[in-house]
Amino acid sequence: MAGSTYGTLFKVTTFGESHGPAIGAVVDGCPAGISLDEGFIQKYMDRRRPGTSRFTTARNEGDEVEILSGVFEGKTEGTPIALLIRNKDQHSRDYSELKDTYRPGHADFTFDEKYGFRDYRGGGRSSGRETAARVAAGAVALKLLSELGIEVHAYARKIGPFEVQGMITEYAEALNNPLGLPDRDTYEKVSEFLDSASGECDSFGGVIECMIKNLPAGLGEPVFDKYDAELSKAVMSIGAVKGFEIGDGFKAAELKGSENNDPFRAENGRIIKETNHSGGTLGGMSDGSDIIFRAAVKPTPSIARLQKTVNREKEEKELVIKGRHDPLIVPRAIVVVECMAGIVTADMILRNMSSRMSDVKRIYK
Amino acid sequence: MAGSTYGTLFKVTTFGESHGPAIGAVVDGCPAGISLDEGFIQKYMDRRRPGTSRFTTARNEGDEVEILSGVFEGKTEGTPIALLIRNKDQHSRDYSELKDTYRPGHADFTFDEKYGFRDYRGGGRSSGRETAARVAAGAVALKLLSELGIEVHAYARKIGPFEVQGMITEYAEALNNPLGLPDRDTYEKVSEFLDSASGECDSFGGVIECMIKNLPAGLGEPVFDKYDAELSKAVMSIGAVKGFEIGDGFKAAELKGSENNDPFRAENGRIIKETNHSGGTLGGMSDGSDIIFRAAVKPTPSIARLQKTVNREKEEKELVIKGRHDPLIVPRAIVVVECMAGIVTADMILRNMSSRMSDVKRIYK
Amino acid sequence: MAGSTYGTLFKVTTFGESHGPAIGAVVDGCPAGISLDEGFIQKYMDRRRPGTSRFTTARNEGDEVEILSGVFEGKTEGTPIALLIRNKDQHSRDYSELKDTYRPGHADFTFDEKYGFRDYRGGGRSSGRETAARVAAGAVALKLLSELGIEVHAYARKIGPFEVQGMITEYAEALNNPLGLPDRDTYEKVSEFLDSASGECDSFGGVIECMIKNLPAGLGEPVFDKYDAELSKAVMSIGAVKGFEIGDGFKAAELKGSENNDPFRAENGRIIKETNHSGGTLGGMSDGSDIIFRAAVKPTPSIARLQKTVNREKEEKELVIKGRHDPLIVPRAIVVVECMAGIVTADMILRNMSSRMSDVKRIYK
Amino acid sequence: MAGSTYGTLFKVTTFGESHGPAIGAVVDGCPAGISLDEGFIQKYMDRRRPGTSRFTTARNEGDEVEILSGVFEGKTEGTPIALLIRNKDQHSRDYSELKDTYRPGHADFTFDEKYGFRDYRGGGRSSGRETAARVAAGAVALKLLSELGIEVHAYARKIGPFEVQGMITEYAEALNNPLGLPDRDTYEKVSEFLDSASGECDSFGGVIECMIKNLPAGLGEPVFDKYDAELSKAVMSIGAVKGFEIGDGFKAAELKGSENNDPFRAENGRIIKETNHSGGTLGGMSDGSDIIFRAAVKPTPSIARLQKTVNREKEEKELVIKGRHDPLIVPRAIVVVECMAGIVTADMILRNMSSRMSDVKRIYK
Repeated sequence: MAGSTYGTLFKVTTFGESHGPAIGAVVDGCPAGISLDEGFIQKYMDRRRPGTSRFTTARNEGDEVEILSGVFEGKTEGTPIALLIRNKDQHSRDYSELKDTYRPGHADFTFDEKYGFRDYRGGGRSSGRETAARVAAGAVALKLLSELGIEVHAYARKIGPFEVQGMITEYAEALNNPLGLPDRDTYEKVSEFLDSASGECDSFGGVIECMIKNLPAGLGEPVFDKYDAELSKAVMSIGAVKGFEIGDGFKAAELKGSENNDPFRAENGRIIKETNHSGGTLGGMSDGSDIIFRAAVKPTPSIARLQKTVNREKEEKELVIKGRHDPLIVPRAIVVVECMAGIVTADMILRNMSSRMSDVKRIYK
Repeated sequence: MAGSTYGTLFKVTTFGESHGPAIGAVVDGCPAGISLDEGFIQKYMDRRRPGTSRFTTARNEGDEVEILSGVFEGKTEGTPIALLIRNKDQHSRDYSELKDTYRPGHADFTFDEKYGFRDYRGGGRSSGRETAARVAAGAVALKLLSELGIEVHAYARKIGPFEVQGMITEYAEALNNPLGLPDRDTYEKVSEFLDSASGECDSFGGVIECMIKNLPAGLGEPVFDKYDAELSKAVMSIGAVKGFEIGDGFKAAELKGSENNDPFRAENGRIIKETNHSGGTLGGMSDGSDIIFRAAVKPTPSIARLQKTVNREKEEKELVIKGRHDPLIVPRAIVVVECMAGIVTADMILRNMSSRMSDVKRIYK
Repeated sequence: MAGSTYGTLFKVTTFGESHGPAIGAVVDGCPAGISLDEGFIQKYMDRRRPGTSRFTTARNEGDEVEILSGVFEGKTEGTPIALLIRNKDQHSRDYSELKDTYRPGHADFTFDEKYGFRDYRGGGRSSGRETAARVAAGAVALKLLSELGIEVHAYARKIGPFEVQGMITEYAEALNNPLGLPDRDTYEKVSEFLDSASGECDSFGGVIECMIKNLPAGLGEPVFDKYDAELSKAVMSIGAVKGFEIGDGFKAAELKGSENNDPFRAENGRIIKETNHSGGTLGGMSDGSDIIFRAAVKPTPSIARLQKTVNREKEEKELVIKGRHDPLIVPRAIVVVECMAGIVTADMILRNMSSRMSDVKRIYK
Repeated sequence: MAGSTYGTLFKVTTFGESHGPAIGAVVDGCPAGISLDEGFIQKYMDRRRPGTSRFTTARNEGDEVEILSGVFEGKTEGTPIALLIRNKDQHSRDYSELKDTYRPGHADFTFDEKYGFRDYRGGGRSSGRETAARVAAGAVALKLLSELGIEVHAYARKIGPFEVQGMITEYAEALNNPLGLPDRDTYEKVSEFLDSASGECDSFGGVIECMIKNLPAGLGEPVFDKYDAELSKAVMSIGAVKGFEIGDGFKAAELKGSENNDPFRAENGRIIKETNHSGGTLGGMSDGSDIIFRAAVKPTPSIARLQKTVNREKEEKELVIKGRHDPLIVPRAIVVVECMAGIVTADMILRNMSSRMSDVKRIYK
C-alpha cells in the first residue's frame, strides 16, 4: 500500500472517496513566495467539474476548493498546501444494489480482491472523482511553472472515430467548446455524432494530446526517472488511460533511423532540432523542443445498457447502470492530463536544480 | 538528480557508464531464502548480450556477472544483492571525434545541457549498455516471481513493417530465433527483409509485447502507483521506448463501452473475465487475467549514414557514425522489457502484502 | 523541501499552521479492516489538548478530529485516512509585534532565513500545535498495533530537577496526574515545585521515557533504517526534543563490554535476554525485549521574562512574551512521543512482512 | 525490508557482508563538476582502517577503494558514483563455531529471527565492516561540502571514564593520536588506562562529538526531516551508537528557559546567537551557529572473556570470543560519524535549494 503520493520534491498526496465527507490533496515541497489563491485553483476545478455540458454527467458537485494551509498573505509559505473539497452531492442515490455486484470495466472486483471489501458508493476511491484532487494540486504546479514562463496545454486529439489532423498551434478553441477539441469543425462533427448516438446508451473513448512549451533543456533524471517515464506513469495513473506515447510514439516503431532522428541545427545562437519526432526528450531529458505526448482514454465503463456480470457470491447477474454518468470522459479528463503533466514538470524543475555543482554554489554563495 | 533507483520495497539501483570500469546494480529488499546463483542471472545476461547474431552489434562484452553480496550458501540473505559487470571491451576505439559533436537521436546534447559536460565515450550513462544492469537485477526479480509460479514472457510483436498476428500463447520460438519473434514464419520474413536492407545503412524499430501470467488479483496500489502506471514508467525508462499501452491500449480509444468492457463470469468457483480488453488490470490493480502490454521501440539512432548536426560550439557538422551498432535494437531489448516487468511485479507483490490487516496478523501471530 | 511525510509503507503526511484554517494529517498505507472511529482518535487528542491543567497553556482548542476519508462502515478501507482538525481559537490575539522580531529559542529566524518570510502568527508551521496532527495519525498507528497486542507507553521520567527512580512497570498513574508522571510521590513533589516557581515566569524541561511491549523480534531494517535509528529520527523531529537514547544510552558509554552485554537464556522454549541494557534492539532490530528509550525535552522557549533579541532589520529589541504558554511542555509532549513511537513501529511491522520468502508464499499461496 | 539507502537527493546505498567478496556504496544524486579521485576517498578510508594502532583490531584490510563509475576525467559526472572495496582478508579464520551460537550484544539472534538464517562469518551485514562503505560515500559528501567551505570535524569527547573538558576549537590533535582525542593530555591518560586494562580482556565505550562549521542558515526541512532529526537517524544507524544529543542535549532538560534560550544579537551586519545551547538548530533548521552533536558509543560487544549464551537450538553455551577485535570502537567510529554527518548535510544542502521561488528563478532564468 501507500500509493497516494506522487513526486520527489514537489510531492502531491491525495485522499478521499467519491461519497465520503471530502476529497483533497496535500502539496508538500512547493517553493515559498508564489502568489496563490483559491480563485486561481478554482478555474482549473471548473474545467473538470461535471454538469457543465450535455456531454458530461449531470452530477453537480460545485467542487469548491478551500486552502487549509501553506498560503499566508497570498503567497505560498514553503509549507504543505492542503486543499479540501467537500463532497456535497454524495447522498443523492442508493448504491446498495452495487454493494455486491461487480461492474464490468470498473475496479469493484479488484478492490474487493485487494482489501477484502470496498466502499461501494460511486466507486469509492477508484471513482473518477478522485481526479478532482489531482486538479487542485496540479493547479499549484501550473502556477509555479507559469512563473518560469512554462505553459502546459492539453486538448482532445481524437474522440470516438474523429481525429483532429495536423500540428496544433492554437489552444484557445479547446477551452471554448465543451469537448476540448482544438478545432471548431471537428467539434461540430463530434458533437453531432454524439447527439445522434445518444440513444444507444453507450460510451466513447478518445485520445488526449498535451504540449509543454518553453522548457529549459536538461529536465529529467537518468536512468529510471526519465522525464518521459515519469510523464507516462503520471498519465497512466489516471483511471481511464490505457496508453501513452511521446513524439511519434507507436508510429516511430515503423520509421527508419534516418527518418526518425531529428537533426540538430544552430539558430540565433541556440541549438535547436529541425524536427521533433522525439516529442521533446532525448535520453529521458527535455531537449529544448516542445514536449508532446498523447494518452489513450478508454470509453467510460458505466453504460446504461444491459451487461452480464457476477456478484461477490459468484452468482450471475444482469446489470444496467443507472444514474448520472459521462458518455464520454475525454472532455473532463483533459484538465486532469494537463495537471498531471504540470505536477511532473514542477517536480522535474526542482529536482534538476542540483544537477551541477556550479548551480549549488550560485545558491549558497 | 538521483534517478537511478526504482522501487519501494524491491528496490533496484543501477550504476555505470558504457566505457567506465564497470556497470552494475544493487537490489535491496529482496526477501531472504530464495535460491540464487550467478548461473541463473547469466542466462538472462546472455539473452541481452551483443554479438550473438548478425542482427546485433559485433561488440563482444561477455557480460559476466559477479554477485558481490547478499547471497550466502546459495540463498538470498535479505541483504542488498550487489551485481557487478566489468566493462571488458571499453578501450577498443577512439571516441574523440564525438567529444563535441551531438549525435541526432542520442542524449549527447541533453547530457551536456543538464550537467555541463558528459562522458562522451559510447554514450556514457545513456548508452544501451546501462540496460545490462537492469537485466542482472531483473533476473533476481524473475527468480522471486518464479517461486510464486508467476511467469513473464516478452517477445517481438512487430519489427519494421512486419507484425505477428493473433494472440500469442507459445513463447518458446521467441527464445529460439535471434529476433525474438514468437512465430517462425514472421521470423523468416523479417530476417530476409533485414538482410536485403542491410546495404541501406539504416535502422529499424518495432513493438515488444509482454505477458505476465498466473498473477494473484489485487496487485498495484491506488492511486498514483497503479500496477499499469508503474509498468509504464519502468518500460518507458528504457532508452529507446517511445510508447506504452496495456490491453487494447490506443485501440480502446476507438471502441464503445459495450465493446471494451470485459464481462465477469464465474468458472470453477473463480471469478474470471470473459474477454481481456483491459489487459489484466482494473483500476490499476491486477484483475486475475494475464497482464498484456506493448512497448514501441524507436529505430536505433546510430546509423552509418551521413547526418547533419552541430557541435558544442554551434558549428554545423556532418556525421557518419562508425563502429559496431545494432541496426535493430528490438531483439536485445526484449529481455530488458521482461526484466523491468519482473522488477515492477516483484515490488508490487511485496507492497501488496500489507493491504489487509488479516494478512498482517497471519504473519505476526 | 518536502519534509512533511514520514514512513515507507505506513506513511504519514501532516499539514497546517498554528493560526491558519486547519491542521491535519493523511495516513496512507494503513491496512484495510481495522476498526476505527473518531472517538478512538479523540482520546489521544484529548491527552495532548491544552487547557486541561494549571501546568499547561490556557488556550482551549477543543481539537476535534474529523475523519474525511479512508474509513467505511467503521473499518479502515486501505485507502488514505485524512484527519482534519479545525483551528477554532486562532483569532484571539494580535501577533503583529512578533512579525519582525525573532523570539529566542524559536524557529522565527530560521524560517525567515529559509523561506524569505514566515507566518508569524503563533509560530506558524513550527508551532507545537503541529504535533496535534501527529497525534491524530499516531492514534491510527496505535490502533493497528493494539490488534497485534503491541503496547506503547510513554510517561515523564524527569521534570526539572526531579527524576522518577527505578524501572517503570505500571503506567496507569501517568494517565491519572496532569504531569504524566508514573509515580504519585514524584508527582506531588514536582507539582509543589512548579507552583512555588510560578512567580519566576520561567520554564522547565524534562525527560520522557517510552516503552514498547510485546513486539516480535526482527523488526527494523539494516542498515540505515534500523528500528532505533527511525525511532530517534521520529522523536528528534518533535520540536522541543534535544536528545534521544535507547536502553542504557549515554550511560552505556561508561560501561565495559562485560557489563553492557545482555546474556541470552532459554526460558519456556523461548530465547530471552537476562538483562536489557540494549533497550530492546540488537543490530537495529527488535530483540524480543521491551523497547525502552528516552527523549530530552528542552524548557519551553516562550517565557514571560524580558529577553534580548533582534528584529528582521537587525535592530536590538527587548522582548517579553505574553499570552498563554506552557511553563512545561513535557506533559503534553508525552502523548506525542507515544504516537511517534507508534507510527515508527507500525511502519516497521509492515516493512518487515516481506523479509522472508516463506512469508511471501504464505500470503500468496 | 530495503533499508540500505539513505537520502532524498544525495542518496547513498551500501552493500556487502563482512566476509563476502566485497562491500561498497553507490552515491546517486551528487552534482556534476566536483573534482574527485580515489586518493581523496582513500584518506578517509585510512582513518577507519583497522590495524593502525595497538588499540584497534589487528585485522588488516587495506580497504582500497575503487571508483567504478560516475567520475570522468577527474570530475563527478552527475551519474551514480559506485565505490568498491574488495574484502581481502576474509578467509583467515573459521567461524563455524559461531554458526549457531548467539553472541551477546551482537545482531546474530535478531538476524536469525528476521530472516530465518544469517551469514555468520564475522557478523555478515551487521559487522562494523559495513561502515567502510559509509566512509567511502561520506568522503564524496565531504568533498561536496568542502567546495562550499563547510567543514565537519568529529573527535572523541569521552573514552571510558575520561572526558575532554571545555569547548573544542582545534581539531588537529584528534587526527594525530590514534584515539582521536582532541587533547594530548587526555590522550596520554586514556592511553595509559587502556594499556593497564588490557589484561582484563574487556572493552570500553565513549562519546564522539562532531561539529559542522560555516553552514548557511535554513538547512533542514520541517516537519519530519528536520536537520537534527536526520543527523540523529544517520548517527544512530551506526551499529554501536546508543544515544544522540544536539547542543546541550540531555543537560538542556535540566535548564530553565531563561538559561537555555540563546539571545540573538546583530554583529557586523549579521544576526548571530550570543550562546549556542541549541547546538546550531532552531525548529530543525540550521541557525548559522556551529552544529554540535554527540553520539554515545557502547563498549565493543566482542570480548575475550567467558560469556553465557544460548545457541539456535536453545541450548545453553559458554562463549569466549577469539580473534581480532577492537577493545574500543570509538577511535575508528569517529570518521564514520564525520561521514554520516557529511552525507546528511550534503542532502540538506541539495534539498534546501528549492525552498524559495526566487532561487528557482535564479537557476532557470
